[in-house]
Amino acid sequence: MASDWDRLLERLRVLRDLGSASSLLTWDQAVMMPPGGAIGRAQTLATLEAIAHERLTDPAIGELIDALADADLDQWQRAHVRVLAHDYERAVRVPADLVRAIAEARGLAYPVWTRARPANDWRMFEPPLNKLINLKKQEADAIGYDGERYDALLDMFEPETTTAEIESIFYQLVTELRPISEAILEAAGQRPAWLTGDYDERAQQQFCAWLVERLGFTMAEGRLDTSPHPFTQMIAYGDVRQTTRTHPKTILPAIFAAIHETGHALYDLGYPKDHFGLPAGGAPSLGIHESQSRMWENQVGRRASFCAWMLPNLKERFGHALGSLTPEQFHRGVNHPERSLIRVDADEVTYNLHIALRFELELELFRDKLEVSELPEAWNDGMERHLGIRPESDVNGVLQDVHWSIGALGYFPTYTLGTLYAAAFFDVAQRDLDGLDADFRKGDCSRLLDWLREKVHSNAYLYPARELGRMITGAPQSVNPFLNYVKSKYGEIYEITF
Amino acid sequence: MASDWDRLLERLRVLRDLGSASSLLTWDQAVMMPPGGAIGRAQTLATLEAIAHERLTDPAIGELIDALADADLDQWQRAHVRVLAHDYERAVRVPADLVRAIAEARGLAYPVWTRARPANDWRMFEPPLNKLINLKKQEADAIGYDGERYDALLDMFEPETTTAEIESIFYQLVTELRPISEAILEAAGQRPAWLTGDYDERAQQQFCAWLVERLGFTMAEGRLDTSPHPFTQMIAYGDVRQTTRTHPKTILPAIFAAIHETGHALYDLGYPKDHFGLPAGGAPSLGIHESQSRMWENQVGRRASFCAWMLPNLKERFGHALGSLTPEQFHRGVNHPERSLIRVDADEVTYNLHIALRFELELELFRDKLEVSELPEAWNDGMERHLGIRPESDVNGVLQDVHWSIGALGYFPTYTLGTLYAAAFFDVAQRDLDGLDADFRKGDCSRLLDWLREKVHSNAYLYPARELGRMITGAPQSVNPFLNYVKSKYGEIYEITF
Repeated sequence: MASDWDRLLERLRVLRDLGSASSLLTWDQAVMMPPGGAIGRAQTLATLEAIAHERLTDPAIGELIDALADADLDQWQRAHVRVLAHDYERAVRVPADLVRAIAEARGLAYPVWTRARPANDWRMFEPPLNKLINLKKQEADAIGYDGERYDALLDMFEPETTTAEIESIFYQLVTELRPISEAILEAAGQRPAWLTGDYDERAQQQFCAWLVERLGFTMAEGRLDTSPHPFTQMIAYGDVRQTTRTHPKTILPAIFAAIHETGHALYDLGYPKDHFGLPAGGAPSLGIHESQSRMWENQVGRRASFCAWMLPNLKERFGHALGSLTPEQFHRGVNHPERSLIRVDADEVTYNLHIALRFELELELFRDKLEVSELPEAWNDGMERHLGIRPESDVNGVLQDVHWSIGALGYFPTYTLGTLYAAAFFDVAQRDLDGLDADFRKGDCSRLLDWLREKVHSNAYLYPARELGRMITGAPQSVNPFLNYVKSKYGEIYEITF
Repeated sequence: MASDWDRLLERLRVLRDLGSASSLLTWDQAVMMPPGGAIGRAQTLATLEAIAHERLTDPAIGELIDALADADLDQWQRAHVRVLAHDYERAVRVPADLVRAIAEARGLAYPVWTRARPANDWRMFEPPLNKLINLKKQEADAIGYDGERYDALLDMFEPETTTAEIESIFYQLVTELRPISEAILEAAGQRPAWLTGDYDERAQQQFCAWLVERLGFTMAEGRLDTSPHPFTQMIAYGDVRQTTRTHPKTILPAIFAAIHETGHALYDLGYPKDHFGLPAGGAPSLGIHESQSRMWENQVGRRASFCAWMLPNLKERFGHALGSLTPEQFHRGVNHPERSLIRVDADEVTYNLHIALRFELELELFRDKLEVSELPEAWNDGMERHLGIRPESDVNGVLQDVHWSIGALGYFPTYTLGTLYAAAFFDVAQRDLDGLDADFRKGDCSRLLDWLREKVHSNAYLYPARELGRMITGAPQSVNPFLNYVKSKYGEIYEITF
């Protein structure tokens, strides 16, 4: 006779497969789907989400969770039940109609965004966004919260983290980071000329495909495509797909998007096989997930030793533009900070100021202090406040990010949490692994990857994010490792004393 | 209050969306998926199929079908209920466990086939195929039949058609076709040299992409990719994807696969929008579906007038190989018949002999007169009997087709039915539309497409296949239009009197 665990596992596998199907539908929507498929895709995704919600909230799941409370389970089984209980309790509070309405609104807002952005047409995007945000408010209210409404949204991406904690982190970070970034921006001066040039897009794609395999990604278990907004999607165990985007006039964005997404992809590929798709089988939070992408992109990819290895390989394909560059010039260009309008192309110094803006706007929306119609103006004001520049158009302002169009509200702060985790984790990796720079100078990242697999990837969601962070670093979360990293690295490049 | 019809429609839309998700998972599996995703994909497809089966066989569906028997419905609603009742009655007879087992076995056999074929390793493919065929026997027995087991399989692809009817058709066809094809093969002589050459694969893909849009296909509502086995998959209304395959040493297979698949795709794109994914919203049978692909491929694509238009366009890209070819030489090469081993590359004269072989083998398997282990030998013997040649390896024999690996048993005969329908329908189109050849000589297929939309596409499954065929042709199904077409066309090309 099947045990309670076996009966639960059978249900969890159905949820896993429904999630896998939705993942593919989502990936395809962004990468492969012809425009004509948009409406059908929104319906299909909404139906799968409704079925998954129905299955997750089946009272039998609640009974099995209760029955397993005192059962003799191993640590993985306990973790699965713990995470499932959390998801179940939240899911049962959301009416099925609302789940479906949100899925449909999301499925319709996304294609509108893909058209509104190139057309620089905020008015096209405003109605579906407004609808979606109203539905997300209803969802947050249905789920409930101890502190404030935004807590319920945050919890979807960074469980067990409160708005108050995030506000405190941003307050410390922005206060300290603004003068530091001003000093760095002033010292950095003019943008190096080679950052703009003629870079064949096909050659960029080929270089990225070669590079990500050097980092440990494999096309046997994934794909690298291009899409307007780079992202990584795990479809199933052994099928993790990333994208980058190329532009014919610049080369670094494609490369660093690929390195960033490889960080995500290597994490997904490092989960323990037997637990894929089960509640504790993936990352404990998006902040932890982002720690991997940011570490590969910044602590590794933008590091002098790694850049010194990458440059001659780049010259093989782009000799016409990069032939005379020294490793020092390349490293300086890779780390050239500027007051830029586009978050995904921002340098690591100013990046978190972009995030602070988005967090503030989301907070105001969900505190009912800001209307969706006021977003473009509020965005532009915020850019002036944080970065001292004002977008001349909504393409470079409020329309730039995909997140809101897919209902990912409460998501942005996890980028900054990832930045903080990345800096803190890399400090430990450097202590644990002697001579990492010598590895990187040979393009060898295998020791770092093994370390991450052991410390981060293989744990999946055995522990909540904060606990995992503390296990790795031995300290509570703090803005200091990141601030020290920025001061030390940029102080050296631009000869600034902080 | 929702009417019975509204309540049924809500359930039908869920089935539509589950079907759409499975379609995408299947397309992706063949075109995009990395090898590492194979096991997860099989599980996901099996889960979706199990959920769809569970929803379809919900007793509430049976009750709604009964309740709607005497309701005041329009002709589309009546058609949906009629087709649903047929599907429902069959589905309730198949146990859920068997549905899942077949889906899993299929999901596992397919990736094995993709490896076994290039490796020419029948022994690798035999165990999963054997398992799948045993499960399909169980399924057929569970569904039941009046005549014989194979009837239950046929009905999945060609509803309301019996094995006895198909046997009679093949008997007439093969008896008459063999001497005709022998005469044509003898007259045709040597293969023209230009059929083999150096044809850049990327240029082939570009030509195919250009060509299919000239035929009426649009990338706004579909895709054209490459895959080992060309196919068309409708994902949703406005999202119909086709594939072709290229080979660097030959050009015609890619082009005629693309024209063939465009025939399928134009049909799918021509269904009435409001009925997409509902029971009567698509083709009444695969035979009717194949009538569209074969007509575009053969009656149009291999026609002298169309070839005369295509040749100069081909010369623009492949001038090095085709520059000196006359339209007559090109048309003759396009219609060069030979004793070939590979069905998908076969000419239209011998094609149906390939199908006859597969039908015979399937019949023997399901009549328990042949073991799966005996298939390679039986295949090779059959090729000698039908075509006078014997495959030297299983790659060119029993391993060549994808169908069995995906559990499509009972499918092959629909290719021949499609051949017969295509010839009969095109006779009517020629009578209805004056000066079609003048259109084709300008690359203009729009009048034919409009005719097909009206006569075939827009009817979807309002009428059973045979009834639709009779409505269009005014006559019962017959092998004569096809035989007359072959005798007339090849008699002219090769100056043979039949």
